[in-house]
Amino acid sequence: MGNHFNPYSLLARLPLFQGMSLSEFDNVIAHVKLGFSKVERGGTVVAEGEVCNGLSFVLQGELDVETVADDGGYRIVECVATPCVLQPERLFGLTQRYSRKFIAATECNLLTIDKAEIMKIVTASEVFRLNLMNILCTLTQRMQHLPWRRRPEGIRKKIAFFLSSRCLHPAGKKTLVVGMVRLAREIGESRLNVSKALHELESQGLLEMGRERIVVAALEKL
Amino acid sequence: MGNHFNPYSLLARLPLFQGMSLSEFDNVIAHVKLGFSKVERGGTVVAEGEVCNGLSFVLQGELDVETVADDGGYRIVECVATPCVLQPERLFGLTQRYSRKFIAATECNLLTIDKAEIMKIVTASEVFRLNLMNILCTLTQRMQHLPWRRRPEGIRKKIAFFLSSRCLHPAGKKTLVVGMVRLAREIGESRLNVSKALHELESQGLLEMGRERIVVAALEKL
Repeated sequence: MGNHFNPYSLLARLPLFQGMSLSEFDNVIAHVKLGFSKVERGGTVVAEGEVCNGLSFVLQGELDVETVADDGGYRIVECVATPCVLQPERLFGLTQRYSRKFIAATECNLLTIDKAEIMKIVTASEVFRLNLMNILCTLTQRMQHLPWRRRPEGIRKKIAFFLSSRCLHPAGKKTLVVGMVRLAREIGESRLNVSKALHELESQGLLEMGRERIVVAALEKL
Repeated sequence: MGNHFNPYSLLARLPLFQGMSLSEFDNVIAHVKLGFSKVERGGTVVAEGEVCNGLSFVLQGELDVETVADDGGYRIVECVATPCVLQPERLFGLTQRYSRKFIAATECNLLTIDKAEIMKIVTASEVFRLNLMNILCTLTQRMQHLPWRRRPEGIRKKIAFFLSSRCLHPAGKKTLVVGMVRLAREIGESRLNVSKALHELESQGLLEMGRERIVVAALEKL
């Protein structure tokens, strides 16, 4: 790792540590076990269903996140910006397992901190505590708001809403692996109309279609 | 208030305080400002859009919660069991305002604790901290899971899903104030089919219809 990987600059870039004073950073670095590791390109950073017994941060590299529908009927893969923390909402609560699969699209540098160590930081640092609660509350608020939004009209907007309501970020590249019949059912349109609309969007350069696969280069443009 | 309103038994009944030791309760009661009040039948406990600058608990009484769609096109009123805490996910994060309106269906006894006081308890008590994070994470997990569930088939199941995905609890009495055209659009069915299905459900005693109003006595039976 290069010299920009000194512990201070590294932690300061992570949302959960933002706003910490130098003395708090000193305290974390001196007293908390930080686990550094690498995942090779194509490797699984975290598997779906894996127990979440700590926080995993991806410090560097490109990350793909795959989420599969409950019944296996479709899946969405999205590219996620780093540095980031993987599903902090799975550290507590009813289901302490990851619901998404995180794959290293390039070599990724990881920082993992055990749950017991996280609890130490939560206890010691008000800044960390507030950051964690802000992240959790914002996530909940965003998800709570979705059903109350005005339903989109038109197939193009319906597909965009279908994707954005299931993704971590409402912009960027998304790959949807789905059959046409299933997609039509999910958005409440006929298979024929969905097929026509998709071909039109493809001709406009807004997406690319493959076998049971739709690649949207920039969801914000759809 | 009766003698069952002594501070210990009162706090111990609230999810956020569950599991606290007697000495922790002593500490809270001695050092935290607890605000007690009453709201008369029909009064507003918390208005939609009101700033959330603390936690409000409804200790006793019957509570109605009203939530309005973003565009005002429909609203849902549900009865909520007490004791309960009102939207703890609005204390932090992006939007620190209530998104629902809470109305006293009978006289309600309230406990309110300011944000600064809540932060004191969060700092002092690991149990409270864990309870709060568990509640926030469980809320997020539940909301995150919704889009990935299998879409229901049939109008009856679609109406039930429409309600349960917008309500605090997936059971009990719910009142939906909506026009038939809007409901049909929301669940992706024709107005005529929705109207027919609703009349059939009414004849089975599963709901009651009024002018732009559908009352479901027990959502879990729909």
